[in-house]
Amino acid sequence: MSPNKSPELKNDRLLRALMRQPVDRTPVWMMRQAGRYLPEYRASRARAGSFMDLCRNPQLACEVTLQPLERYPLDAAILFSDILTIPDAMGLGLYFEEGEGPKFHRPLRSAADIEALQVVDSERQLDYVMNAVATIRRELHGRVPLIGFSGSPWTLATYMIEGGSSRDFARSKQMLYDKPELMHHLLGVLAASVTDYLNAQIRAGAQAVQIFDTWGGVLSHAAYREFSLQYMSRIVSGLIREAEGRPVPVILFTKGGGQWLEAMADSGADALGLDWTTNIGSARARVGDRVALQGNLDPAVLYAQPERIRAEVATLLESFGEGPGHVFNLGHGITPGVDPRHAGAMIEAVHELSPPFHG
Amino acid sequence: MSPNKSPELKNDRLLRALMRQPVDRTPVWMMRQAGRYLPEYRASRARAGSFMDLCRNPQLACEVTLQPLERYPLDAAILFSDILTIPDAMGLGLYFEEGEGPKFHRPLRSAADIEALQVVDSERQLDYVMNAVATIRRELHGRVPLIGFSGSPWTLATYMIEGGSSRDFARSKQMLYDKPELMHHLLGVLAASVTDYLNAQIRAGAQAVQIFDTWGGVLSHAAYREFSLQYMSRIVSGLIREAEGRPVPVILFTKGGGQWLEAMADSGADALGLDWTTNIGSARARVGDRVALQGNLDPAVLYAQPERIRAEVATLLESFGEGPGHVFNLGHGITPGVDPRHAGAMIEAVHELSPPFHG
Repeated sequence: MSPNKSPELKNDRLLRALMRQPVDRTPVWMMRQAGRYLPEYRASRARAGSFMDLCRNPQLACEVTLQPLERYPLDAAILFSDILTIPDAMGLGLYFEEGEGPKFHRPLRSAADIEALQVVDSERQLDYVMNAVATIRRELHGRVPLIGFSGSPWTLATYMIEGGSSRDFARSKQMLYDKPELMHHLLGVLAASVTDYLNAQIRAGAQAVQIFDTWGGVLSHAAYREFSLQYMSRIVSGLIREAEGRPVPVILFTKGGGQWLEAMADSGADALGLDWTTNIGSARARVGDRVALQGNLDPAVLYAQPERIRAEVATLLESFGEGPGHVFNLGHGITPGVDPRHAGAMIEAVHELSPPFHG
Repeated sequence: MSPNKSPELKNDRLLRALMRQPVDRTPVWMMRQAGRYLPEYRASRARAGSFMDLCRNPQLACEVTLQPLERYPLDAAILFSDILTIPDAMGLGLYFEEGEGPKFHRPLRSAADIEALQVVDSERQLDYVMNAVATIRRELHGRVPLIGFSGSPWTLATYMIEGGSSRDFARSKQMLYDKPELMHHLLGVLAASVTDYLNAQIRAGAQAVQIFDTWGGVLSHAAYREFSLQYMSRIVSGLIREAEGRPVPVILFTKGGGQWLEAMADSGADALGLDWTTNIGSARARVGDRVALQGNLDPAVLYAQPERIRAEVATLLESFGEGPGHVFNLGHGITPGVDPRHAGAMIEAVHELSPPFHG
């Protein structure tokens, strides 16, 4: 697949901020911005059938990806998909039970299961994702850049081993501590698959990519470096870093990773996503000019009234301070119970309050 | 209630280490050491009926408190009780559904519910806890010190508002952001109740106390200070700090609080509990000689084989380094699936490997 013959990008704030280049105001997008808090999303989802039917249909995936852009002046679109498409392509059988999160019909239960896994060829086995990326790029008409994404190897591994979400990750951690070589083999296969997957998204038109390390934060400081960060660094070093004549920035987001930012900044990524537990001003002082920072409003702030939301946005912008390198976002995905007008109030506050920080 | 006429304390390693005084080896205990991983606990629990029947019966609470001491050479006993006794005494109706964690029959649903709450008089309303403390002290015969404990105000508030465990603390956080005065009123009543509760435990014989801030780590850096740490500091400043002629050390444990140790060290507590995500050597460098540190092996290490457990203990002891001020513990409670022999291997390793760090 070759890059789309695409119109000029009209709003490059996100791409510039991720590379720590000057912008006129702080760019803003929201993790899970195409999601259940939007009535138009729920309508598309109802038409699609299951959640995976929605992901597998490029037209519908494009439709829901663009919905938040119709409603809000956001600075980026993010591919609508699931973080577990790779294990699904490996044959584990992804499905969703209402209110219970993702599950696998055939979780990894033995060393033989793991040794049988093959690196996924994404352009062939995950062509529905690449078709969605290409469709979205076409329909965006250069309005804002499109972010591609993948789960991190460690995060994918936990779901594949536990068979779904987990409270204490007992099986995954038992393997990590008791059979580290087997865990490293699994993570190696996943890292190669994620690298290929993100490169395929970039070739299909993704203009930035984010690695979601949802469960890196449950590891010890030492295990995080050995079993999660090491593989994300390997992925970063294998990615296409320039396309259509501009850099393709890479964002690393480890939920619960606030203690490890210095190590994450050495991964080769261009930007780090922060959850809401980290003070973004302190984080900036710690990582210096090595990476841009993305985040990090507590998603629960959106349950509050608009005036309180505006005050929290102001505090966050002040905490980061002047100059480039900040992408405004929530510290985790927007939750289904949020009033869409409250998300609008946050975005409006970023538009109105951030220009003075970019003198 | 007056202090028990108690025999001399034969093993004061824990109390000395918490005050950063020299010891011959690193003291060790385990959070939730009286618990479901022990077959003898499961037998006592079966005899008692419900979990709360076990907590409310001082003889049975004493029996299960002492069980891990019969099996392992631990340096402390910890009162067997639940963290939610205070809201139960406030009339919320604590109960447990198998495999679902604690729940309340009458969670807080309105401002009127909150304004009606009264500070708990622990010696009268939680006499079963004080009877358990006195009974355990008597039965310990001065073998090791007894640790008392309470949940933190913020942690108690989340359960009282959500009605049980929660994924995203939506109700609690909505109140925090939208009705901060109401949340502060609730936390004030809880802080006064916890202060009274811990002081009653100390008068009944507890020789150290720990505040469990299980859910402080879900707050933003700023909200943690305002809505959790502030109230724990208030409690610490109201506690009896000396009994039976020696200091009564206070341990503060915020799960997920690794980014905030400097602020926690200013709370007035003698020691900070660390979860397993924090490097204990770095933590020591950050807090200096202001507080002792307790922790912080990943509880999941106990799923591994004894030789791996021993290696992880060695790494942790080396990370803290030489000199006083370390209490060995897990970074969170021991989990039900652990083989009791593996807990024994950890404790044995601390006994054998720690003396060289206390020259």
